[in-house]
Amino acid sequence: MFDDIHAEADPTVWDAADPLAGFRARFSLDNAGVIYLDGNSLGRPPRSVQAAMRDIIDGQWPHSLIKGWDHWIDLPARAGDRLAGAALGARPGEVLVSDSTSVNLYKLAAAALAAAPPGRRVIVTDDDNFPTDRYVLQGVAEQYGGELRTVETDIDTGVDPQAVAEAVGGDTALVSLSHVAYRSGALADMTEITDVAHDAGALVLWDLCHSVGSVDVALRDCDVDLAVGCTYKHVNAGPGAPAFLYVREDLHDRLRQPIWGWFSQADQFDMDAGYRPQTGVGRFAVGTPGVVGVAGVLAATELIAEAGMPAIREKSMRLGEYAARLVAARLTPLGFTLASPADPLRRGGHLTVRHPQAWQISQAMREAGVIPDYRTPERIRLGFAPLYNGYTEVRDAIDRMAEIVSTEAHVAYPADPGRVT
Amino acid sequence: MFDDIHAEADPTVWDAADPLAGFRARFSLDNAGVIYLDGNSLGRPPRSVQAAMRDIIDGQWPHSLIKGWDHWIDLPARAGDRLAGAALGARPGEVLVSDSTSVNLYKLAAAALAAAPPGRRVIVTDDDNFPTDRYVLQGVAEQYGGELRTVETDIDTGVDPQAVAEAVGGDTALVSLSHVAYRSGALADMTEITDVAHDAGALVLWDLCHSVGSVDVALRDCDVDLAVGCTYKHVNAGPGAPAFLYVREDLHDRLRQPIWGWFSQADQFDMDAGYRPQTGVGRFAVGTPGVVGVAGVLAATELIAEAGMPAIREKSMRLGEYAARLVAARLTPLGFTLASPADPLRRGGHLTVRHPQAWQISQAMREAGVIPDYRTPERIRLGFAPLYNGYTEVRDAIDRMAEIVSTEAHVAYPADPGRVT
Repeated sequence: MFDDIHAEADPTVWDAADPLAGFRARFSLDNAGVIYLDGNSLGRPPRSVQAAMRDIIDGQWPHSLIKGWDHWIDLPARAGDRLAGAALGARPGEVLVSDSTSVNLYKLAAAALAAAPPGRRVIVTDDDNFPTDRYVLQGVAEQYGGELRTVETDIDTGVDPQAVAEAVGGDTALVSLSHVAYRSGALADMTEITDVAHDAGALVLWDLCHSVGSVDVALRDCDVDLAVGCTYKHVNAGPGAPAFLYVREDLHDRLRQPIWGWFSQADQFDMDAGYRPQTGVGRFAVGTPGVVGVAGVLAATELIAEAGMPAIREKSMRLGEYAARLVAARLTPLGFTLASPADPLRRGGHLTVRHPQAWQISQAMREAGVIPDYRTPERIRLGFAPLYNGYTEVRDAIDRMAEIVSTEAHVAYPADPGRVT
Repeated sequence: MFDDIHAEADPTVWDAADPLAGFRARFSLDNAGVIYLDGNSLGRPPRSVQAAMRDIIDGQWPHSLIKGWDHWIDLPARAGDRLAGAALGARPGEVLVSDSTSVNLYKLAAAALAAAPPGRRVIVTDDDNFPTDRYVLQGVAEQYGGELRTVETDIDTGVDPQAVAEAVGGDTALVSLSHVAYRSGALADMTEITDVAHDAGALVLWDLCHSVGSVDVALRDCDVDLAVGCTYKHVNAGPGAPAFLYVREDLHDRLRQPIWGWFSQADQFDMDAGYRPQTGVGRFAVGTPGVVGVAGVLAATELIAEAGMPAIREKSMRLGEYAARLVAARLTPLGFTLASPADPLRRGGHLTVRHPQAWQISQAMREAGVIPDYRTPERIRLGFAPLYNGYTEVRDAIDRMAEIVSTEAHVAYPADPGRVT
């Protein structure tokens, strides 16, 4: 696979033939000269997303005033439906854009625990799951008289389905893991782990923050029960853009989330009745949605739909594999090691390298016009955004890393202050 | 009080002398000819709020990319501090802009229940509280093995402190009410009801959605424990703008909210530790804040600070009282009745009138260029925004209502379809 990719290839040839090359011009590139490899933290702004947000702020709000709600009220469901089809492999009516990832994780994990029989109180996760996932699940476990059971995971190669299989059992209510590991970019086996959870009689809740918009997610094909994710990374919907949640349709009636806000009410404007949740995915909504943010998510999703997830995933893997081969050829002789799975099929949208002076190197990279991000311990993440990153950028970034370390340009920077940026 | 205000006065004189008159030009007035009396649902856009949001979308996001988080990370606390001082009578470090009102209400109500001794499981609210409050509190009560006790409230005059006093007792963990009633605009006695709750050994949680930015709220002076509110009504921060929460400083250590997201963690970027909440109000945060929305709230708050809440409240009461006297003189002969408290000191920022054909009349009003909103049963709310509404607008609105009903222009509209808009 990817036999044509090697360290000595000419990346300009690939860029010239890239079917997604035209998408770069769809982004706002105030600093086009910068090689931005941190789209896995915050994507660059698509012009259409900026325009959609401006249309709410400068058009719909002042013009329509309160009547704007006639078309805003179902925006979270419309954006969810679009995301379901374009990026999640889910059906209309199964996805809702709402709240933050952490709030959505809480809602769905709590719903799963509340619906589980009394003998099932265990939530299984892994010790390398993203902090907010571990904290939220710990809180849900405590609140529902349960226990958070943590599988040990190799931080470079990701969660092992066999270890999950050994952790689940008749006491397990929920298995909750990240689809792509935030540190290593390791892609979990969604099919196998979902089956493991189901075989044990548990539900599964996937965090798609680092996979949505980068990996071709197939929630329905994998028979996933529940999922959440953010939209400010590979979906490019802007800083703190609203998150989404997915609940497989046949579970809607069985699950009830704990935050009984009026947007989850069967007839929201029949204001006199007691609480009676909607029958659809809307029962997992809570309060008034942030209209500007949701409009941004919808526009960002349209861009992904236009490019198509198969093409995005294909280029993402090629960019990552090119980077991996350049790392092997040029950076490992300089003291770097790969801190991601070696198999491109087992990686998401970023590649991670390790070096004892990773913090200082990441600072020197910024100075040299390459923006990665740093993660403890001693790791640099290189995120690839197929809609705006090219192959030549990958080569140039690795070249500059090699230059920095071989000339010791990074030693001028102070040591890791412990702060991840 | 307000002896100069009567139905036959010339409102243009007041508009000419209005110290806040200049603020109208600070708003985006695409439809300046429309008399917009629904700022209590969705405020008109201040130009500075639109500009602040555009600055994130078109400036900071594309320009700073991931480094934007260096100044975005504390935006919820900065906006909270500003709101605390300008509109809430609270201290820095007690208010946070985050999530939706419903999510914040859930967090604080659940925190109160979790911290209460086992013998205190009752939440007291009133039967006319806003639906999301009743639903959320019902859910919290159920989740914490408690009970929601509901005080009967007259829907036109608001919650009676004596009725609250009779409902609370040694079994009560929390009293949660709305400061201004969404239907009638009745202003609850925050001082007296807070004392009633405290005398019973309970905490109090005020919903400020319909008062913040309109009524001069004094959380500290009233010794309020907890509060939440939205920012899209009288704060004018835009459709679905993020909400806020307040927790009195001495309670921070005693309370822990149930959604243990990473933004509430003591050292958010020390990603290896177990959950350990911050010591300050940040422990009530959850996930990644919506940067565009929070920036809008900060700008909207600056405008309120510039005008000053005492001046806003003074004009709000004068506008409302002028409307009340016009209603008495011109609308009661046509079958309207006042559905708000008669005393201007006991009203918030809107006035409500009742008429058997209220739905049809509200439709005819829109056609006549006056935007009110309708609430069941048979009520029209008239909201006054001191920063952009003038006295002449009030007179013209009431005149058009009188014209509509006296000419029976409203009977052409179909009867109430049961949908509140």
